[in-house]
Amino acid sequence: MPTLIDIARRTGVSGATVSNVLRGRGSVSVKTAERVRSAANELGYRPNLFARALAEGRAPTIALFFTNITNPFYAQFTLEAEHAARRRDHFLLVCNAARPDGTLDTAYLDAVAGPLSEGLIVLGSDLGRKNLLSMLPAGVPAVLSIWEAPDAYPSKPCVTVDFRAAGRLAAEHLLELRHGSIAILTGGTSGVPIHNMRLAGAVAALRQAGIDLPKARIVVDEDSIGGGYRAACRLLESDPHITALLATNDLLAIGALQAAAERGCPVPRALSIVGITDIWMAAEMRPALTTVDIATASLAEGSVNLLLDLIADPDGVPSDALRVVGAPRLIRRASTAPPST
Amino acid sequence: MPTLIDIARRTGVSGATVSNVLRGRGSVSVKTAERVRSAANELGYRPNLFARALAEGRAPTIALFFTNITNPFYAQFTLEAEHAARRRDHFLLVCNAARPDGTLDTAYLDAVAGPLSEGLIVLGSDLGRKNLLSMLPAGVPAVLSIWEAPDAYPSKPCVTVDFRAAGRLAAEHLLELRHGSIAILTGGTSGVPIHNMRLAGAVAALRQAGIDLPKARIVVDEDSIGGGYRAACRLLESDPHITALLATNDLLAIGALQAAAERGCPVPRALSIVGITDIWMAAEMRPALTTVDIATASLAEGSVNLLLDLIADPDGVPSDALRVVGAPRLIRRASTAPPST
Repeated sequence: MPTLIDIARRTGVSGATVSNVLRGRGSVSVKTAERVRSAANELGYRPNLFARALAEGRAPTIALFFTNITNPFYAQFTLEAEHAARRRDHFLLVCNAARPDGTLDTAYLDAVAGPLSEGLIVLGSDLGRKNLLSMLPAGVPAVLSIWEAPDAYPSKPCVTVDFRAAGRLAAEHLLELRHGSIAILTGGTSGVPIHNMRLAGAVAALRQAGIDLPKARIVVDEDSIGGGYRAACRLLESDPHITALLATNDLLAIGALQAAAERGCPVPRALSIVGITDIWMAAEMRPALTTVDIATASLAEGSVNLLLDLIADPDGVPSDALRVVGAPRLIRRASTAPPST
Repeated sequence: MPTLIDIARRTGVSGATVSNVLRGRGSVSVKTAERVRSAANELGYRPNLFARALAEGRAPTIALFFTNITNPFYAQFTLEAEHAARRRDHFLLVCNAARPDGTLDTAYLDAVAGPLSEGLIVLGSDLGRKNLLSMLPAGVPAVLSIWEAPDAYPSKPCVTVDFRAAGRLAAEHLLELRHGSIAILTGGTSGVPIHNMRLAGAVAALRQAGIDLPKARIVVDEDSIGGGYRAACRLLESDPHITALLATNDLLAIGALQAAAERGCPVPRALSIVGITDIWMAAEMRPALTTVDIATASLAEGSVNLLLDLIADPDGVPSDALRVVGAPRLIRRASTAPPST
């Protein structure tokens, strides 16, 4: 591709003059400026923004780390983060930190953080649990996003959602419909839930209504459609009186819808199911999934903006900054109704 | 972040010497080299790979353009492309070319192609139909991937799958199960199919078996779960004798599964459904979707490799190069069975 030097050669002026003309700087005669511009057009010159940005001491890219972009929530976050980055003249590198075998590629972080992007967004509590955070190179601006346990990582700024409110809204919706026999499906590995705050919010709302969930009514399984299917099967088998399931994630809720369908249990007539997140698939289910929208676009935009603020002024953002963005809201669809009497 | 200059200041040598030491070039005394390296460590210096790459006349990024990454196939392709790019020391910029209102952001292409990445992969026939291709800046290496109509764009190298074989495999599977009353769901807008080759392969296989599908048995709708649902509803309403649906994409097939469930039509006992692609959701459906795997990982790797070849030697790849990668293969799951008699 043609460079500034090619334009300089063709017009017989210095490279510095060409640069000044193309960047609208310095003082150049109108005639020379015109010659430079037409030579640039003829040659098909395209400015190298990376080179320009680096000369000005900044990089135009930020990196987004997650385990695996095929998770529909991560894909949706990526879309919104990319729109937000573009609005601030930045571009997005996607970094799937999970290797095909499920282990974490920590060398990736080292290759990207600093050398290839001025900062990074680490998305999702699952990466924290896998200790990606402890490997973050010092001095590289990083923001944690959608962190469910911000207390556990006091040394990095966080952007999060009021997940406690999201859990509460889902529970209150079921209570409002007059469900009394409720069970919760939540994501986690080895029985340890990762959606701590959503779970706490839901449990607290139920308790406030006088419902103290026995331990057997809270099932932890893999945070996936398959996990939700298994958890719902277990719950429905062990207790046929359950009239409503609250899933702390939409993938789990979608698995629960499948479990109900397979058991010939009509949703919502015999069983109500509510999720949390509002991934695009929620609206596409039949029945369409009632869920709590966690404002993914606000979360993504908030994460990009906090990171760019941090890059612009590393001392301007406290390391324990916690920005709570958006406001969860209930999206009533077809998977919930009053219990049949 | 610390720069070469900071290290030079601390050690009292020139920036060029620091650069030589850190890149293992030139001739520097062992003692000086040690001082430079320990200063780099102390300061937490991290090399700027972009700057280095640009100085060497190459950029470490390639850009991936598609309409919208929330499409599960695009997300899966992105994951695989990123792994392939990493194996060749490149990083991936994701570019969602569709604006939230559905129109195409062509300025994006202009900002990225050349200035921010040495080359790009344009993924999906939908972008071609929207004329993104006509806006590709001349001289920027670009590869079209998963192109269903390569003849329509003779001026750019393509990487594709033998989609005709994929369509044929899906049809032959239904024929093998002895279905005679088959209908096809295909994606497209305004009645114009976009999965031309899959459709042609399926129609040809049926014709070879003596089945000439009437026009009413091929329904075109939006290439989505909702589109598949609508198309299947229309087909099943108009003709209760249909025993099998062939969808040219998994999203359509998933919509058809929903339509069948809602009508109380058991799959596969009363209706078989087969898709094409094998997105991750296919295995997660209940019943799990029988489909034709189009080897997304090979497609992604082939696209990245062709682009990097083109960047390395623009004259080494003919502009009408067509690489057909992978080999479609049938994935038998639970959504197909012989028709009940």
